[in-house]
Amino acid sequence: MIPILSIVGPSGSGKTTLLEALISLLRERGYRVGTVKHAPHQKSLDQEGKDSWRHAQAGAEVAVISTPAGTGVFQARSGEMRLDEVVESYLWDLDLVLVEGYKEERFPKILVYRRESGGEPPLNRGEGLLAVVSDVPLPLEAPLFSWEQPVRVVDFVEERLLKGKRGRERVQLWVDGQRIPLNPFVQDLFHSMLRAMVSPLKGIGTFRRLSLRLDNPEVAGPGQS
Amino acid sequence: MIPILSIVGPSGSGKTTLLEALISLLRERGYRVGTVKHAPHQKSLDQEGKDSWRHAQAGAEVAVISTPAGTGVFQARSGEMRLDEVVESYLWDLDLVLVEGYKEERFPKILVYRRESGGEPPLNRGEGLLAVVSDVPLPLEAPLFSWEQPVRVVDFVEERLLKGKRGRERVQLWVDGQRIPLNPFVQDLFHSMLRAMVSPLKGIGTFRRLSLRLDNPEVAGPGQS
Repeated sequence: MIPILSIVGPSGSGKTTLLEALISLLRERGYRVGTVKHAPHQKSLDQEGKDSWRHAQAGAEVAVISTPAGTGVFQARSGEMRLDEVVESYLWDLDLVLVEGYKEERFPKILVYRRESGGEPPLNRGEGLLAVVSDVPLPLEAPLFSWEQPVRVVDFVEERLLKGKRGRERVQLWVDGQRIPLNPFVQDLFHSMLRAMVSPLKGIGTFRRLSLRLDNPEVAGPGQS
Repeated sequence: MIPILSIVGPSGSGKTTLLEALISLLRERGYRVGTVKHAPHQKSLDQEGKDSWRHAQAGAEVAVISTPAGTGVFQARSGEMRLDEVVESYLWDLDLVLVEGYKEERFPKILVYRRESGGEPPLNRGEGLLAVVSDVPLPLEAPLFSWEQPVRVVDFVEERLLKGKRGRERVQLWVDGQRIPLNPFVQDLFHSMLRAMVSPLKGIGTFRRLSLRLDNPEVAGPGQS
């Protein structure tokens, strides 16, 4: 599974600042990082009146804007997606997913706190607590890191979540938005079978990524979903 | 293949207005529609300072914002994606993709024009021209529709691009962002083989969508991409 690390803490305590430092340092070490921000109170995805917003309002399942600065994708019709669906759809080939705002989920967590930002330190976030980044000690059973040395946090995250994951699972099976776990034997088997299935086809030599997708329109075809 | 229909015309001629009408009417008929807007001069994807923008600036491959109003995905690092990559990544399970701004590509096209918007009607867009929506006749070899009856345009699009496509290809193979065409025999074969491969696994009954993905980190592992 792709490791997921959640950054939690009161508003204004520096979650995004820590995320930026982690992303940048992990990237320097060769990891491909994705982020998911959960904004349960945000009313609109895109700016009103922009074309992709108009497309989504008119009923497009997915509205994409493609620019030299990158690609923006707006999926409005489906309402809020579960985090595992988000990971399957958009982040499945990365090394680490950093999330902000999924407080209730059981991922490994880093709690951030700054005295000056006020608010009570959320000491009830014990479950899955991996580390604390704070300018004051907090009565929590987790290693404490200072804001000044994000590189130490990255060393720790790498050690705990990424070591030995470089040769990550090579075969992934997803069914209706759910990842189906495959043991190493089945992964090897599927790997060999897939290679054997596609090898007689023209135009397939060495490749980095292959996906084979199967639709069962009879289960929920267009118009019924 | 997923049919792609391009809407072309001078700036201000009503491309987005027609797109909205098409999306809404096609949706009423049960089709699942996606859109891609090509904005080759847009400098930034997201609003500066917003968290997803900050994540992307810091080096995240993909930054997602998840809200009750839907999901926004920002893919900044890869620069501009080819349209076929966009379709593979985000639109592969839809019935029709409507695009705006890919003038040079060889998709079926609808040319839109309004006299009041000024500008010359782009008469050199002959290649792949499927229809014209205009308030004045244009010397082009394609059926002319008025702005007042978008339902006629939709009838025509359905007849030309969507009829008989409801039972669309059930098995798709993608390799490194390229769709590999499979003839019906190979599709049936892969369909049976995939079903046989996954049927002994726990937790798989009937499903609407299955994908099996294979990574070859040795071809381009993390850090080399």
